[in-house]
Amino acid sequence: MTTIEAPPRSIIVVDGNEAAASVAFRTNEVMAIYPITPSSPMGELADAWANQGQANVWGNVPEVIEMQSEAGAAGTVHGSLQGGALTTTFTASQGLLLMIPNMFKIAGELLPAVFHVAARTVATHALSIFGDHSDVMATRTTGWAMLASNSVQEAHDFALIAQAATLESRVPFLHFFDGFRTSHEVAKIEEISDDDIRALIPIDGVLAHRSRRLNPDQPVIRGTAQNPDVFFQAREAANSYYDVVPDIVQATMDRFASRIGRRYHLFDYVGAPDATEVIVMMGSGVGAAEEAIAALTERGEKVGLLKVRLFRPFSSSALVAALPTSVKTVAVLDRTKEPGALGEPLFQDVATAIVEETQKGDTSWPVPPRVIGGRYGLSSKEFTPAMTAAVLSEAAKEDGKRRFTVGIVDDVTHLSLDVDEDFDTGRQARIRAVFYGLGADGTVGANKNTVKVIGQETDLHAQGFFEYDSRKSGSMTTSHLRFDDEPLSSTYLIEDANFVACHQFEFLEKVDVLRTAEDGATFLLNSPYGADEVWNHMPGYVQRQIIAKNIRFFVVDGNAVARDAGLGGRINTVLQTCFFALVGTRPIEEEIVAIKETIKKTYGKFGDVVLQKNYAAVDGAVAALSEVSVPDTAEAEDGMKELVPAAAPDFVQRVTAMMLEGKGNLLPVSALPVDGTFPTGTTQFEKRSIAHEIPIFDPEICIECAKCALVCPHAAIRMKVFEPEALEGSPESFKVRQFRSRELPDHVMTIQVAPDDCTGCGVCVDVCPAKSKEEVKHK
Amino acid sequence: MTTIEAPPRSIIVVDGNEAAASVAFRTNEVMAIYPITPSSPMGELADAWANQGQANVWGNVPEVIEMQSEAGAAGTVHGSLQGGALTTTFTASQGLLLMIPNMFKIAGELLPAVFHVAARTVATHALSIFGDHSDVMATRTTGWAMLASNSVQEAHDFALIAQAATLESRVPFLHFFDGFRTSHEVAKIEEISDDDIRALIPIDGVLAHRSRRLNPDQPVIRGTAQNPDVFFQAREAANSYYDVVPDIVQATMDRFASRIGRRYHLFDYVGAPDATEVIVMMGSGVGAAEEAIAALTERGEKVGLLKVRLFRPFSSSALVAALPTSVKTVAVLDRTKEPGALGEPLFQDVATAIVEETQKGDTSWPVPPRVIGGRYGLSSKEFTPAMTAAVLSEAAKEDGKRRFTVGIVDDVTHLSLDVDEDFDTGRQARIRAVFYGLGADGTVGANKNTVKVIGQETDLHAQGFFEYDSRKSGSMTTSHLRFDDEPLSSTYLIEDANFVACHQFEFLEKVDVLRTAEDGATFLLNSPYGADEVWNHMPGYVQRQIIAKNIRFFVVDGNAVARDAGLGGRINTVLQTCFFALVGTRPIEEEIVAIKETIKKTYGKFGDVVLQKNYAAVDGAVAALSEVSVPDTAEAEDGMKELVPAAAPDFVQRVTAMMLEGKGNLLPVSALPVDGTFPTGTTQFEKRSIAHEIPIFDPEICIECAKCALVCPHAAIRMKVFEPEALEGSPESFKVRQFRSRELPDHVMTIQVAPDDCTGCGVCVDVCPAKSKEEVKHK
Repeated sequence: MTTIEAPPRSIIVVDGNEAAASVAFRTNEVMAIYPITPSSPMGELADAWANQGQANVWGNVPEVIEMQSEAGAAGTVHGSLQGGALTTTFTASQGLLLMIPNMFKIAGELLPAVFHVAARTVATHALSIFGDHSDVMATRTTGWAMLASNSVQEAHDFALIAQAATLESRVPFLHFFDGFRTSHEVAKIEEISDDDIRALIPIDGVLAHRSRRLNPDQPVIRGTAQNPDVFFQAREAANSYYDVVPDIVQATMDRFASRIGRRYHLFDYVGAPDATEVIVMMGSGVGAAEEAIAALTERGEKVGLLKVRLFRPFSSSALVAALPTSVKTVAVLDRTKEPGALGEPLFQDVATAIVEETQKGDTSWPVPPRVIGGRYGLSSKEFTPAMTAAVLSEAAKEDGKRRFTVGIVDDVTHLSLDVDEDFDTGRQARIRAVFYGLGADGTVGANKNTVKVIGQETDLHAQGFFEYDSRKSGSMTTSHLRFDDEPLSSTYLIEDANFVACHQFEFLEKVDVLRTAEDGATFLLNSPYGADEVWNHMPGYVQRQIIAKNIRFFVVDGNAVARDAGLGGRINTVLQTCFFALVGTRPIEEEIVAIKETIKKTYGKFGDVVLQKNYAAVDGAVAALSEVSVPDTAEAEDGMKELVPAAAPDFVQRVTAMMLEGKGNLLPVSALPVDGTFPTGTTQFEKRSIAHEIPIFDPEICIECAKCALVCPHAAIRMKVFEPEALEGSPESFKVRQFRSRELPDHVMTIQVAPDDCTGCGVCVDVCPAKSKEEVKHK
Repeated sequence: MTTIEAPPRSIIVVDGNEAAASVAFRTNEVMAIYPITPSSPMGELADAWANQGQANVWGNVPEVIEMQSEAGAAGTVHGSLQGGALTTTFTASQGLLLMIPNMFKIAGELLPAVFHVAARTVATHALSIFGDHSDVMATRTTGWAMLASNSVQEAHDFALIAQAATLESRVPFLHFFDGFRTSHEVAKIEEISDDDIRALIPIDGVLAHRSRRLNPDQPVIRGTAQNPDVFFQAREAANSYYDVVPDIVQATMDRFASRIGRRYHLFDYVGAPDATEVIVMMGSGVGAAEEAIAALTERGEKVGLLKVRLFRPFSSSALVAALPTSVKTVAVLDRTKEPGALGEPLFQDVATAIVEETQKGDTSWPVPPRVIGGRYGLSSKEFTPAMTAAVLSEAAKEDGKRRFTVGIVDDVTHLSLDVDEDFDTGRQARIRAVFYGLGADGTVGANKNTVKVIGQETDLHAQGFFEYDSRKSGSMTTSHLRFDDEPLSSTYLIEDANFVACHQFEFLEKVDVLRTAEDGATFLLNSPYGADEVWNHMPGYVQRQIIAKNIRFFVVDGNAVARDAGLGGRINTVLQTCFFALVGTRPIEEEIVAIKETIKKTYGKFGDVVLQKNYAAVDGAVAALSEVSVPDTAEAEDGMKELVPAAAPDFVQRVTAMMLEGKGNLLPVSALPVDGTFPTGTTQFEKRSIAHEIPIFDPEICIECAKCALVCPHAAIRMKVFEPEALEGSPESFKVRQFRSRELPDHVMTIQVAPDDCTGCGVCVDVCPAKSKEEVKHK
């Protein structure tokens, strides 16, 4: 297979949502949307672009319509398609479920359209905003073609391939990629130009779609009712349209390759040509699996990976043709679960395809391979090269498990595979940086920025992935940044960081931030204590890791630098500067120029004052950054905070505490309730203590309006009126003031804040009529 | 296997909806409903029973709540279950699709419940109110157990088995049966008593469900959000509950058999023990297939049928254990279509199960059987013994089709099998009666009544099935009644009637009513012409059939008898009496007593006047019924009305006309549009001419209010004002009156009725302020 030399294209650093939306926006005229995580950014971007007057490749500004729900969005899409407009939507999870009735109609009426789905878990025993294929799989009865993207680049490429193929085939396409892992991964990709799009979209298909629109000049009737006499025949009348879809998709992929250079097939095989064990899967897990396969084949193991691109219509002949004839066991991995089914959907397809093609005599293997099936990655559970190796090793066993899970410990039904956590692909990105920040402290934004800067301004490939907590603002976010000379396909978290930054000093007592640090890594700590005194303020288990792992240890007082620069609590510029200073490939002076250039791009629109504050933060950061001279021995006590008091109930000790400590992944199946039932009142044990600043009651100026207590979103502020006698024995620091009330004369009042529950959000201060923000005391 | 002697139980004659609702009502406390065809009668019955104060088996009157849609009904069910109430709902088609999000939740939370579904086509290229499994199959990802009933008796029995099993297992059950074919088939069944229900419902399960309710005294939290750390483990925590469902269902079926006598298994095999070709299917088609298998095995053919009862959780070991080891080809029949899938769902399950069980070594066949898959019966398309034979014959071919359809002619993708329409099972019910009536003329009601009378008052088994047209009132309805000494499992239309009744004389020119009459059959015609003159008013093709088939031919002027008896146009009592007179097994005097007894039961509540009118109709009917002396030769012209004028467009000639003539079944796939697009304006060619009475404009009394033209639901009345000059050359019978108007002085007006479009519904007369109903002229 030859790849024709492609013209140079723009390099962009975007996440999967933007990658897909970019093509969807440029190839459609109407977008009916309703936001749902993790697909919301697609609709939001489309809305923003339309408001900015951006046009599609035909020069028209698409119309973006937000409906009352995804059901309304799907109905709008249906109507708009019948009106002859190129129409799309973006959705996930329950949103996609609400579209099912209209999806049946759209497919039945052979209306060309692409839905872009950031695949997300459907709520069962619990809701989850994270990613797996349970939503997509719940729509596979609707008669839609389904195309799976495994990476940000593919989300970009397949958005176009799907749009071109639907216009040629009239069969609607569901284009999906993994929620968060792909939708929110920031990566450096090659941009498809408007010219590329115009070259690949079959204009005949567009015109044909237009000509089929409901139109009073040439009236037709659709949406009729049919009786048993003709319904079945009419339902079969569309068969030919489906029969040709695989060929149309492959032909579109070939045209794509000719013009753009990246070559795809309905099924793409990588690995040993004489493999005996082969994994079949689709979605972002392919990245991790491919790395493992590369490492294993290098070691001489006969293993391989078949990537599924076109899941519907399912081409059994293409599947079998893509498998090596040497294969003995095929392990199919599904990122979904269908309780009560004989096996998950991709597994059943592969099992059926292999037995049928064998019986037809269209295969050349001596004995048809055994097919086994496993679940992985539900709700964004990590999937790693080590798990890939575990699956392949199970597949190689004579009597290995026919059904399994991987990535968890199932101590109840014992379906899970043992994973050798020491499995190493031997392939590492040059820079592997992990950052611990607080939601809304600017860490994620700064890191996205870093990925963009390095991705766009250097030859390095760049990848950024961000672990969010669904509790949102005030929770920990972990950023995983990789940079390398080679393209990055590692679709899993960094476990061997050579740079670790902890943006919140308090985390040291709660999170083992150096767990992922490898020997010789660099550690940057945002610390209120300077290089000379910080050591004695640190927990012993961190000290010992620094010594044992030969870690280079730097501190910066980011909050002080930011405050001094006039940026308040926004520490992102400071810490981003330190990262560049520590891992930058250029002299520090050049890095500073580059950072300031970026700041100009990002904050320029806010005016010179903001710019100057950020420039000051950059300069201050470099000045304040200092290396800690690490002693030979660590004396401090271990100091990991007990997150949950010993008096807490058993369930809280065993389960809740593990989740609070970020060790929920280690909980075995038996630890979790079977039906989503949890004890109540456990939030009381979750003292997050994340506020840097808390409001302080000032009896002198308080006007007793109680607004602070009313608005506190975490109910951390309480106002109380009581008789002065109750004050007896209270500490002197306990502040009260005379309560002004005719109903309760001679009473006093106080306002108390629970410091560990306060998140420092500041809305209490915003609403206080007596006190301005500047007067808030530091904790 | 031994069946314990069961106590005698009540015999009832009910349809599938009532059979299921009867058990659902008695085993639940809350029913959240929203009506959708063909499941509506279940909700309506439950609502009526609750209003009448009927109680469930624990003495409580269930609460029936109608919501704003099926989505609301499902949400109410979910909430009610969490409140600890035994809760159910009834739905179908798009209604079921709207329940999908809640179904995922209910299963995830292991809430015991049964949804009763009258399975109906999901709308695709067209809407259809008829039956297939596309709705049920669209929910198979939700984690619900699924139990299929194949007959009215099973709809009754499995409603209880599902309810007992869900309470024991905590896994929710979808209990389904075929819309119309089972939901609307009236059959004689054995009633499950309240004592039976109390004996079989596990009271421990009820109490456990109650104890798990959300309850402020023992608060728990459910419906939480989970993150990637624990979601996957929690999702696996319910595995054990699913693993035991097949055993629980089988144990429940065994307990059911011990008490009630009817014995069921997860899969029930019938046919040759050494069969080489076996059909696997579920739903009402099983009845037709079983008859074919019985006939074929009698002739020595090695064929069999495996009935699927528990579709989810799918037990591959039970499936394989139930198959004869001699089987060479398994033909799986699916009553659904999933475009783009490798095969329909039941097919893929069976294919996967067989290859896996074989690989496990748990089977004793020398070579695993080939599995082929076909679609049948979409949207209530007939499925017959002849089609069963065609499938088995295809299965026996060395290189038969691996994918096929049966029941249609597919001249495009050539998937359809040829069916030998002469295939005869040699098994006939003693009485096989077909009735042609008009929607709303009382034919269906009277025939249901007949089935009840014969079913309950004789030892005969009874079955009534009614072909409706979705155009409802004013369209033709065909009733198919069977009576026999043996139980009736013929789940297909009568093609060899020994009694045919045509309740509308006009049908003779439009419908070949004697097509299904066998040699020597009895033909009853409702005729305005007496026995001596009717022959000369009949089309020649009917005359010739009467002679050739040696048909005994009777006429009665039902409309005259009904009118004379004071029943207006209600001819049902007259024609029902004639049926009993002609096919009754008792002397006519006894039959008359029996009919009057039934009338008393049916109409007694309306008072003595109504009773006497009906008694008079009975006596009048017997007196007016007379046999026609059939001449030896037929002279009349063929006389089948050309339904569509020769000038109609090509599509109307080729397609619409066939559908209007009731020959839509004969249309091949190529005749139907691929995407549901039809030409407009075709209704103008559909002149149904069904009105017995039409309104006549009387210029003397008209007050020009135009209400008649306004309310006419078929737009068959037009009022026109014009200058008198336009009257020139009009026939004398063209009536006008002076128009009263200052704006248009010297104008005249007329009201004209299009007689072929008028349905005779009479609403114009109802609203006419000038004319009372009695004054309407006869056509």
